[in-house]
Amino acid sequence: MRVPGDIIVCLDREGAVRFIERVWGLEPVFVCVIGTTDTAKIPGISAAGRNPEMTDYTPAADVEYLFYGECQCIEGVPVTPEGIPTPALITKSAVDVAGIPVFVVNAGVRVRPDVPYIDVGGVPGGDIRTGRAVRDPDRVFRKAVIVGRGFGRVVDYLVVGESIPGGTTTALGVLLAMGVDAEGRVSSSMPENPHELKVGVVREGLAAAGIRPGDLRDDPLRAVSVVGDPMMAAFAGLVAGAAEEVPVLMAGGTQMVAILAILKVLRPDVLGNVAIGTTRWIVRDRTSDLEYLVSCISRVPVLAANLDFSCSRYGGLQMYERGAVKEGVGAGGAVIASILKSRGGITCRKLLEVIEENYGRIFRSFR
Amino acid sequence: MRVPGDIIVCLDREGAVRFIERVWGLEPVFVCVIGTTDTAKIPGISAAGRNPEMTDYTPAADVEYLFYGECQCIEGVPVTPEGIPTPALITKSAVDVAGIPVFVVNAGVRVRPDVPYIDVGGVPGGDIRTGRAVRDPDRVFRKAVIVGRGFGRVVDYLVVGESIPGGTTTALGVLLAMGVDAEGRVSSSMPENPHELKVGVVREGLAAAGIRPGDLRDDPLRAVSVVGDPMMAAFAGLVAGAAEEVPVLMAGGTQMVAILAILKVLRPDVLGNVAIGTTRWIVRDRTSDLEYLVSCISRVPVLAANLDFSCSRYGGLQMYERGAVKEGVGAGGAVIASILKSRGGITCRKLLEVIEENYGRIFRSFR
Repeated sequence: MRVPGDIIVCLDREGAVRFIERVWGLEPVFVCVIGTTDTAKIPGISAAGRNPEMTDYTPAADVEYLFYGECQCIEGVPVTPEGIPTPALITKSAVDVAGIPVFVVNAGVRVRPDVPYIDVGGVPGGDIRTGRAVRDPDRVFRKAVIVGRGFGRVVDYLVVGESIPGGTTTALGVLLAMGVDAEGRVSSSMPENPHELKVGVVREGLAAAGIRPGDLRDDPLRAVSVVGDPMMAAFAGLVAGAAEEVPVLMAGGTQMVAILAILKVLRPDVLGNVAIGTTRWIVRDRTSDLEYLVSCISRVPVLAANLDFSCSRYGGLQMYERGAVKEGVGAGGAVIASILKSRGGITCRKLLEVIEENYGRIFRSFR
Repeated sequence: MRVPGDIIVCLDREGAVRFIERVWGLEPVFVCVIGTTDTAKIPGISAAGRNPEMTDYTPAADVEYLFYGECQCIEGVPVTPEGIPTPALITKSAVDVAGIPVFVVNAGVRVRPDVPYIDVGGVPGGDIRTGRAVRDPDRVFRKAVIVGRGFGRVVDYLVVGESIPGGTTTALGVLLAMGVDAEGRVSSSMPENPHELKVGVVREGLAAAGIRPGDLRDDPLRAVSVVGDPMMAAFAGLVAGAAEEVPVLMAGGTQMVAILAILKVLRPDVLGNVAIGTTRWIVRDRTSDLEYLVSCISRVPVLAANLDFSCSRYGGLQMYERGAVKEGVGAGGAVIASILKSRGGITCRKLLEVIEENYGRIFRSFR
């Protein structure tokens, strides 16, 4: 098996090749888990919205864009404060070109999307500085397992992505609560990764709950309830249910490490059936360390879509090369799945053309 | 192709055989569409609950039973006023024995089930006597099309059932509004079919909206909004989306004719890809006439599960032979799908054993 040049393989190379062989040419389903939190509204935490208050709209708008090619709950598409568009642009281009069906799981959002979605009983997350981040993650986890199992029985394999602003901060929260040395290592949607701010927010939350780093090593859903986010419970449950039967590509950056940490305690049996799918911008990021973090948890292969926007005709896409956005809405995993489904027929270069077309369409219709 | 003896074939025999050949041995997904209405609370209309007010709980309890083998929102399981248990008992036995995955679509319920479900933006239905039965069925239809299309791209075929109390009255409503001569021909969950009451309720609704029978021949979703129920919009949309790609077994009795009537106007292209799957109790019912009604709409094959509870050791099941319940929660279609998936390995006789086991379990744990 030759790994397509458009997929970068990190960490467990053999495992990655095995994963690719298992799903080569098969038909995946893409599931996007959405959630919102008040953590994302802390100034400086998230760039997934024009301003902190807009982060409540971003997940709904992202999945509306995936389904309809335009958002219903906001004008235009979600952008960073600098106006750089959501990675949903990449995801949509990939799933459309490859003909990959999309389902949405609502893990708890303040603004509901105007698309069909699977409800697993989640509610929006709080501000982790209170130490009370997520209500009843166990229940959401259990329901998501049922959903994952349902998909696992009918699909070839599953690609699971997420859209939740502020997600790397809550990932840091869960990782620290579980004793993973993640300080300064989670990613950011901003070129300047605000590590100090994130660590401060997480420490405040842990202190408020009377938890020391590592205390919740064996109680991941408690960690979620204290300093996590609602997406995590649903995402982990989905993976746990589906990976009983079929391979699962966990589509995301350093947030996926928190999911792995949860699964390692609750469902270590499924870890052999998963891989992480992300972007080159994540694995080459100097402000975070996905490979180190994954290696702290388990030997799970990491695949990265070799996307390169440096020659794009749009400044907004070129900014991805300077550390903006990097990943989200399962962009990297969706691109990888499109390459694998098409047996390499779809390339990152071809996708860039589609992404640019969609980019042009968004900003024309927005004006 | 020899049709298994446990499946009765009505109407278009060739079409039925073709349908069976196409899905023989394949892996279906069972989708249960749930909804509630205030129409079901009119005394004497529905037996899908111990009393009219309980009908709000029945659909949620039905799908909870499908997933967990016990209900969360009520004690025991839904029963008729005489204590005869829900047909979900049959459905669950069939999908469990055959290993058929279940998904739920919430078309609009007053009591939400404690299971994962797909939300298509529906709200509970009103009392059709007001002439304002369902809000915004177009939107629900469109979202359900998306869901159906998603399933259609990943499953071999779809079985769609429903749980909505009072559903034959709203079916009568839509059929009369669309000019189908359905008076005295829709089925009932009671041995004594209250045709006069139903017709009276429908006439009151049509009059309130200023609609004469047949006026809405070409506007089925308007008919739904006036005298229908929320399940119909979601069910029709699901079928429309899925049957673009794969065969769909519409699991239900005379309510399915209203769905066919909707589809015949909105999506006649998919009618060649559907069949109705129901029970012997429906096709042999002397108080209704499924075959006549279907033949008014389109040449669609009707399959019926040859279930016979006359020798059951439980009086509550024997009552099915005397015209109680008859169908619901896609029971007939689920049984047919279990037979087809197992290539005839699963029989109605074998299923009765499982149904009796489950029956015993329910009433033991209930006491």
